[in-house]
Amino acid sequence: MGAIQARLPLFISPSIKHHSFLHSSSSNSNFKVRSNKSSSSIIMATIKVHGVPMSTATMRVLAALYEKDLQFELIPVDMRAGAHKQEPYLSLNPFGQIPALEDGDLSLFESRAITQYIAEEYSEKGEKLLCPGCKKVKATTNVWIQVEGQQFDPNASKLAFERVFKGMFGMTTDPAAVQELEGKLQKVLDIYEARLSKSEFLACDCFTLADLHHLPAIHYLMGTDSKVLFDSRPKVSEWVKKITARPAWAKVIDLQKQ
Amino acid sequence: MGAIQARLPLFISPSIKHHSFLHSSSSNSNFKVRSNKSSSSIIMATIKVHGVPMSTATMRVLAALYEKDLQFELIPVDMRAGAHKQEPYLSLNPFGQIPALEDGDLSLFESRAITQYIAEEYSEKGEKLLCPGCKKVKATTNVWIQVEGQQFDPNASKLAFERVFKGMFGMTTDPAAVQELEGKLQKVLDIYEARLSKSEFLACDCFTLADLHHLPAIHYLMGTDSKVLFDSRPKVSEWVKKITARPAWAKVIDLQKQ
Repeated sequence: MGAIQARLPLFISPSIKHHSFLHSSSSNSNFKVRSNKSSSSIIMATIKVHGVPMSTATMRVLAALYEKDLQFELIPVDMRAGAHKQEPYLSLNPFGQIPALEDGDLSLFESRAITQYIAEEYSEKGEKLLCPGCKKVKATTNVWIQVEGQQFDPNASKLAFERVFKGMFGMTTDPAAVQELEGKLQKVLDIYEARLSKSEFLACDCFTLADLHHLPAIHYLMGTDSKVLFDSRPKVSEWVKKITARPAWAKVIDLQKQ
Repeated sequence: MGAIQARLPLFISPSIKHHSFLHSSSSNSNFKVRSNKSSSSIIMATIKVHGVPMSTATMRVLAALYEKDLQFELIPVDMRAGAHKQEPYLSLNPFGQIPALEDGDLSLFESRAITQYIAEEYSEKGEKLLCPGCKKVKATTNVWIQVEGQQFDPNASKLAFERVFKGMFGMTTDPAAVQELEGKLQKVLDIYEARLSKSEFLACDCFTLADLHHLPAIHYLMGTDSKVLFDSRPKVSEWVKKITARPAWAKVIDLQKQ
């Protein structure tokens, strides 16, 4: 499996008109998009996200920022020109992947580390992304954050690559890979179904980062035939409806349309 | 790629004599191994680890417990008999993977969530596993914890499977897979080399969970021809020597010999 398949967050759809995206205005008051041109308006936001709104990892970070109702500036990375593989971007993320975040003099990468930072640093703002509670709740939240990263995402992201991104790149979906990945994902979702029979969300009865981290891959898969994997499991289906209906998530999807 | 390849922590070497392991006595005062027989000695430790000492994920948890100088009980999981895929084990980890941890009435799985819990819950005991410092240090530690889980481990664990575990299971190493995985791992280690030129350990100048999480895969790879990937990078080589020389890690390796 090549590098392009292994890291879904790197992808950007060729159908996105990069120049129109850069200069679009937004009805969304949380963010500003920096223009590549020097005539762009003055940007006041402290938090800077370097990424593109089609990327699953960028979407994860944007969702956390919107949940927290934080002002931020989205700085597009021109991936077609390979900007993510060159300086100055490599100083933000030496792995050459998006997104990266700057908050004052703090610079971070790896989307799940960024969301953790946002949730903790801005704990008093917007929606809670970590359920306030005892050590048991905190530790259990970390378990399900790890489950997303280690059990769900490796299958779901590759499946989204096969079903969504390959088409965008003029590549051909591999039916055998889809079958294998769906088989693995079903086993994960069976466990989610049992878990969601015991608590409203994965970690507890609150929406947390453990749920939020799933949103990007679920978003893409719900537009494919793999939707049935989620729909056929009542508790999972209910959970998907709840987490995708969050106003913060709607703002992330809106960003993709601009 | 089949499930057996995807989850290295599930493996146990057939060369381990399970019965002798179960009943061996230990010079290591931190842990007790529960016998399968009812005649076993009374176990007083509160923390219970369900796993096997050859498993990379179990080793990660054991390393954290030894660093913290915590008393614990190691409860072997009879994976040959499929105990990890049946109750009562599935109540501890619904994914049927090792390890699982019990601490009083708290039950956890996913090795990296367990080490995080150990580091935080027992912050005042033994060695620090999270560098005390400002929010910047904490956030940066989380970045490098994610780097291990998302960038290093997917390649290193599969490489260890090819080079170490396949042989144990009478399977044949795939040279093409080894070449591809080593290529990917080299790119990761190039970034580590640059990082370790700036700080003594990955997250900062303290040994943290971000370093500790690497130990199991590094341990196995250092016994193979892939050792050169680490040895040929001066800063990485120095780092490997430092982290593998820790007394807590020596205790984990000792456990494997029993």
